[in-house]
Amino acid sequence: MALSANDVAQKVFQMSFRGYKQDEVDDFLDIIEHELDERDREIHELRSRVRALEKKDDDFLL
Amino acid sequence: MALSANDVAQKVFQMSFRGYKQDEVDDFLDIIEHELDERDREIHELRSRVRALEKKDDDFLL
Repeated sequence: MALSANDVAQKVFQMSFRGYKQDEVDDFLDIIEHELDERDREIHELRSRVRALEKKDDDFLL
Repeated sequence: MALSANDVAQKVFQMSFRGYKQDEVDDFLDIIEHELDERDREIHELRSRVRALEKKDDDFLL
């Protein structure tokens, strides 16, 4: 996964004569940052859970 | 998780005098959409893997 929540937080856009309203984009990116964080935490927990269950599985077969 | 990849795809910002460059924001949101999709797919797979391992675990204990 190439993009982290921190990448979103650090992202800077160029300004232009007519462009997207800054506060709207900033608010939306704050939500996205939170969403990426949440998903990464769940992935981390699920991966640990799978490893633990797989280890338990192996121990049964010994 | 409140925000889906599709929500990102559907997002529309108001325009303003001196705002963020549209193509930069659009390109960045395309990357984010892909990243959310990828993470949601991994979460789905990991959840299924945990359920399968937990069921196998229960079957052992019967």
